Amino acid sequence: MWEDRLARDLETALQAIPIIDPHSHIDPRRPTARHLDDILGYHYYTELAHSAGMDKAPLGPEIEPRERVRAILAHLDRLDNTTQNSWFVEIARTFLGFQGNRITAKDCDSLYDAAERLMAQPDWEDQVLRKSNLEKVFLTNDFDDPLDGFDTSRYVPCLRTDDLVFHLDKPEVRQRLTKATGIELGGPESVGQAITWLFQHFTNKGAKACAVSLPPYFWPEKLSSEDFSLHWTDLMNGRKEAMYFLTKGVFWLLAEHCRTFKLPFNIMTGVNRRVYRNGVYQGQDLFDQRTSLIEFAQLFNAFPEVTFPISVLSSGQNQELVSYSWIFPNVVTNGHWWYSNIPAYIEADCRARLQAVPKTKQIGYYSDAYKLEFVLPKYNMYRRILARILADDFVRPGIYTEEQAVEFARLLLRDNARRIFGV
Amino acid sequence: MWEDRLARDLETALQAIPIIDPHSHIDPRRPTARHLDDILGYHYYTELAHSAGMDKAPLGPEIEPRERVRAILAHLDRLDNTTQNSWFVEIARTFLGFQGNRITAKDCDSLYDAAERLMAQPDWEDQVLRKSNLEKVFLTNDFDDPLDGFDTSRYVPCLRTDDLVFHLDKPEVRQRLTKATGIELGGPESVGQAITWLFQHFTNKGAKACAVSLPPYFWPEKLSSEDFSLHWTDLMNGRKEAMYFLTKGVFWLLAEHCRTFKLPFNIMTGVNRRVYRNGVYQGQDLFDQRTSLIEFAQLFNAFPEVTFPISVLSSGQNQELVSYSWIFPNVVTNGHWWYSNIPAYIEADCRARLQAVPKTKQIGYYSDAYKLEFVLPKYNMYRRILARILADDFVRPGIYTEEQAVEFARLLLRDNARRIFGV
Amino acid sequence: MWEDRLARDLETALQAIPIIDPHSHIDPRRPTARHLDDILGYHYYTELAHSAGMDKAPLGPEIEPRERVRAILAHLDRLDNTTQNSWFVEIARTFLGFQGNRITAKDCDSLYDAAERLMAQPDWEDQVLRKSNLEKVFLTNDFDDPLDGFDTSRYVPCLRTDDLVFHLDKPEVRQRLTKATGIELGGPESVGQAITWLFQHFTNKGAKACAVSLPPYFWPEKLSSEDFSLHWTDLMNGRKEAMYFLTKGVFWLLAEHCRTFKLPFNIMTGVNRRVYRNGVYQGQDLFDQRTSLIEFAQLFNAFPEVTFPISVLSSGQNQELVSYSWIFPNVVTNGHWWYSNIPAYIEADCRARLQAVPKTKQIGYYSDAYKLEFVLPKYNMYRRILARILADDFVRPGIYTEEQAVEFARLLLRDNARRIFGV
Repeated sequence: MWEDRLARDLETALQAIPIIDPHSHIDPRRPTARHLDDILGYHYYTELAHSAGMDKAPLGPEIEPRERVRAILAHLDRLDNTTQNSWFVEIARTFLGFQGNRITAKDCDSLYDAAERLMAQPDWEDQVLRKSNLEKVFLTNDFDDPLDGFDTSRYVPCLRTDDLVFHLDKPEVRQRLTKATGIELGGPESVGQAITWLFQHFTNKGAKACAVSLPPYFWPEKLSSEDFSLHWTDLMNGRKEAMYFLTKGVFWLLAEHCRTFKLPFNIMTGVNRRVYRNGVYQGQDLFDQRTSLIEFAQLFNAFPEVTFPISVLSSGQNQELVSYSWIFPNVVTNGHWWYSNIPAYIEADCRARLQAVPKTKQIGYYSDAYKLEFVLPKYNMYRRILARILADDFVRPGIYTEEQAVEFARLLLRDNARRIFGV
Repeated sequence: MWEDRLARDLETALQAIPIIDPHSHIDPRRPTARHLDDILGYHYYTELAHSAGMDKAPLGPEIEPRERVRAILAHLDRLDNTTQNSWFVEIARTFLGFQGNRITAKDCDSLYDAAERLMAQPDWEDQVLRKSNLEKVFLTNDFDDPLDGFDTSRYVPCLRTDDLVFHLDKPEVRQRLTKATGIELGGPESVGQAITWLFQHFTNKGAKACAVSLPPYFWPEKLSSEDFSLHWTDLMNGRKEAMYFLTKGVFWLLAEHCRTFKLPFNIMTGVNRRVYRNGVYQGQDLFDQRTSLIEFAQLFNAFPEVTFPISVLSSGQNQELVSYSWIFPNVVTNGHWWYSNIPAYIEADCRARLQAVPKTKQIGYYSDAYKLEFVLPKYNMYRRILARILADDFVRPGIYTEEQAVEFARLLLRDNARRIFGV
Repeated sequence: MWEDRLARDLETALQAIPIIDPHSHIDPRRPTARHLDDILGYHYYTELAHSAGMDKAPLGPEIEPRERVRAILAHLDRLDNTTQNSWFVEIARTFLGFQGNRITAKDCDSLYDAAERLMAQPDWEDQVLRKSNLEKVFLTNDFDDPLDGFDTSRYVPCLRTDDLVFHLDKPEVRQRLTKATGIELGGPESVGQAITWLFQHFTNKGAKACAVSLPPYFWPEKLSSEDFSLHWTDLMNGRKEAMYFLTKGVFWLLAEHCRTFKLPFNIMTGVNRRVYRNGVYQGQDLFDQRTSLIEFAQLFNAFPEVTFPISVLSSGQNQELVSYSWIFPNVVTNGHWWYSNIPAYIEADCRARLQAVPKTKQIGYYSDAYKLEFVLPKYNMYRRILARILADDFVRPGIYTEEQAVEFARLLLRDNARRIFGV
């Protein structure tokens, strides 16, 4: 009686749409998991198990993968309510032949063995891609990634620039930059030359986006080239506090390069790093809800030619994002990021976007996955929610027919990403 | 099977309640549209079309209205998902005999001609009022509006004071003030005299509210008359920075006049002006979610005799508004404003108000319309949501009977506005 | 047709789970109401009636309780939409034999008489406890509460520390502290000694938690003992501004004592006191949505051994709480506090917690009640919402069976509180 047949039909139709996944951390040279540890080593599981009481010893590099898996599985009964756990169950059921609804330490060996056997198949990557209906997936590439050895039409490079914006004060980062570009970082103009070299290299290799994640306290501001020189000289003379301005200067340079090289600039805003100091790897960052896109107004105004796909971390910030995308031609909504990537928030945030942002200006979802196996359960979660909203807010009120609703979903899952990123 | 008959019955009952619309931008001397350009020229359409890729050329004053309409219609297929578009479709269906569910550039001529013909009927205004079941609608009047030439019992004047609060540093505003009141702006006391004159004039002409919209950075503070004099003298001597304090001083003067003249003081808080610098007319303003009503505590405490109907721009701010209205006798909730005026946010915000604010302290909705034709689709959107909440949260749980639920809605749609504004 | 049988079945199952209510203001020596004034004197009714137009005269100490009740009842027709009113109706129906759905001034005498008669029964307390299925309820004890004369295994003491943190500048607070502990407050070390004495006393008497409510502007910071001495000396010399640092110093001392005495430290954050200056007793406080748990990062990092059950006032802040509980092992979610304690916000906040926080790290609900009669309607509200979320988000999608869903609820209603507080 409570079955919503329309929503289910829409969900089925949505599953037939090939996905372009515009943000992940996939390693294109090793895109799938090789054993269960590659799945459960995902920070969502290590951080939740740790939060629920597991100490960090099983996460040490000296621990056998199978024993690490056993330790994490032994804690899942404390967090089997979480959406993150449901992704894992769906992976086990879809890819590993698991039958039940709950996975515990008792399943460790059978599941570990099954995974090892199945994932060793030579066509495993293809199987996963096919089952996931995944056409292309974007990467997150360090600036000194050679971008060699993989099919860049399937695994689309994306220049991740956090190191350039925030860590140029570190000698090792400057050395990496010099090594990658062959440009000695002397005067301030050399920074711009190195960045130009990187954009040239990345776009030559098929990169389709530039990306950065920003802390709540950062806001973009134009730095004059005189000021850039001044602060660069200060930094070279050991004055670390010059970084406050140089981050702004480098960020602005990147935006200028996005304009020149016609790359969208993906901005993920709101994350504080290392908040929980003793957290597990990648399980230390948290947000501050007190952010506003008003701090990006200068940027959006200065670069009308650059498209800014924006990811935010809170529902409060999402309401601003809806409004900023509705007004600024160059601002588009981008996925449901990290702490917002659970149904309660996806549903609220997605409904508002679907109702108020032009349909061509929404990139529906991305997996943020480290291994391809995660694309399927995460997208299924999104499609389920999307189908329900389309049923309730569009088809039943007569705004769209079912076919039109599916066309809308096709924009969100595939065609907007194609057009915006030019893939 | 998914039809909610109770919600539909309630919706029908709600449509029978005559509306008092307590905030609009209607020009009472030309309250309805004369052609389709008056409908699609509404900033919701120009800004969305522009955001979705239309350049601003078709919006120029030299462009034929029909061609401007054609240009906007040609972009609707990029935004036919939006609630704003659904208002337009409902106008076309209800008032212009349109039959379909989607309007495109192909419909331009037929729809334009139909509109021109229908809107030219001598009783068009009455038709629209009747179909909309609209009893009274509040205006937004400049302080120098003579308020002549219209029926102020139907079109209720409201003194809009943004110019007085924020722009007294502009000679043309001071000249307008002098011209309207006959009072030369010499010493600081002349400002108070001019404001008194305006309140006298407006209340004589049937004005029932004073209103202002405020930026996020503004908070009300009492300014002593000595300080007012000091800053006024500074301003007259060309020190623009005196405006920081004078805005507070004038605002406080307005609140004092609301007390004296027994007018509610409508406050719409949170909007930054000109954020998107190259946006279309009225499509440049955006909000900052980082506001708090705590900044109004001094005001609410100082004027217990003045009712403050408050409009906010974000759901986060709405939760504060619910709480402040629940505690302060002189704070009432007022409508669903601008970027919050889409179903996803109306529903969440309205549910919380309905559950926690005394029912006599809620002004349910206002159209914010520039032309009467928009009252109907906007109120229908609100009534549909309201009916569903009444069904789910009040009738089905047994808190209200259907009749009691309709009585509650009557307060929200009509009787609270009548009592609070004294119309 | 719209009946959700699964949700109703779950609700019934949830009602069979004995409650441990981890936060209330019950007076264990007089835990139940003696007359209707004890019910309607609850600040939720006095503040809402006042907000809806009742002046404060009926609240004066010289007014007969029956007449105060009559005055409040006479205003209920202005707020019978509120959730708070529905608690009252449920109390009247469950405990006082009332039959209708609305209570007005006409019901005053019959209801007042019924209440007086029923509440005078010698086993009233037991009746209420039994009907409410309440096993244990936590108290809010002043630091100088002797904790004598009641059954501390049913009424669990909790050391409330607001006075210590924020009001040590008041001579009467220092005198109360000296009187309670026998320790003269001389040098700064005497403050620590007095606090140690209190923790010893409270834990000896069965206290299971320490608690404090914090204003938005407060954030915890370690104060060195040298700085503590300095500021204490300043305070003793009449420099009130030393309190800014001493509040931080005392707060940190409390956290250290929680570590030593193994008590969870309940933090309720976000409330401004005395915002509405002329409000009724306990009806003057309001929140500022602009808070962030990032300000507690130093605390959470410094005390990994202390569990911090956190209560927040806004849905925006709840999204942070969900994320902080998901990451920090020592942060757990705690109930739905005050202005967030209405279905619209409980539902949104609870869904997010259920989906993303390990199930062992959530304390579902507390009554915050002043009289035992309120436990039942408030918990029923929560159980109704919880049952619906469990049905929609867990049982129907196949994540949990009905039995597993009820087990999850048992953690939220009882077992997590048992384990975390050690009762």
